[in-house]
Amino acid sequence: MASTPADVKEYSNAYVFIIDMPGLKSGDIKVQVEDDNVLLISGKRKREEEKEGAKYARMERRVRKFMRRFKLPENVNTDAISAVNQEGVLTVSVEKVPPPEPKKPKTIEVKIA
Amino acid sequence: MASTPADVKEYSNAYVFIIDMPGLKSGDIKVQVEDDNVLLISGKRKREEEKEGAKYARMERRVRKFMRRFKLPENVNTDAISAVNQEGVLTVSVEKVPPPEPKKPKTIEVKIA
Repeated sequence: MASTPADVKEYSNAYVFIIDMPGLKSGDIKVQVEDDNVLLISGKRKREEEKEGAKYARMERRVRKFMRRFKLPENVNTDAISAVNQEGVLTVSVEKVPPPEPKKPKTIEVKIA
Repeated sequence: MASTPADVKEYSNAYVFIIDMPGLKSGDIKVQVEDDNVLLISGKRKREEEKEGAKYARMERRVRKFMRRFKLPENVNTDAISAVNQEGVLTVSVEKVPPPEPKKPKTIEVKIA
């Protein structure tokens, strides 16, 4: 299980997590929310299909399992999470809960007594 | 310029170089042969498009330029190189020159004197 580099960006309406996951197809990646406030992203890459008779002359790409865990801020909507996998980079967007409308000052009519 | 993990596999008819290059589109990757015997693979990834108003809360994916250089064995055909980019992993195949046909023993007819 290896850590893989990630960026986290904050927008006015969402948090975006960008994670390098080279060699993983969308079906090999899991995006989960644990305990309502932890974003867990994991994936396992399969070894490339072996043709018969291959000999490894060098093997540096040993990492097969990728995992990252992020504590989510309080103001997010865990029902509004989307994920896109492109060129080996996963982008997960978590929408923020819109802030409550500011309360307007209440005007009380002053009646003439 | 950062090194990125690679595997090298030898088949009976080719050498195959597999290199992690997350976030690079095919157009961002260069595969070159230098001095007739060095395979040079390089690429630059662009920063994801910036929407306005993004703040980085974390920035670990600092690597923008990937590069690997491999000395090629002598028995390769540098005119027969192909490259495929998939899920952020580049696979470069270099064909071997077929070995010369083994010489058949020559049979000399023995004539009756």
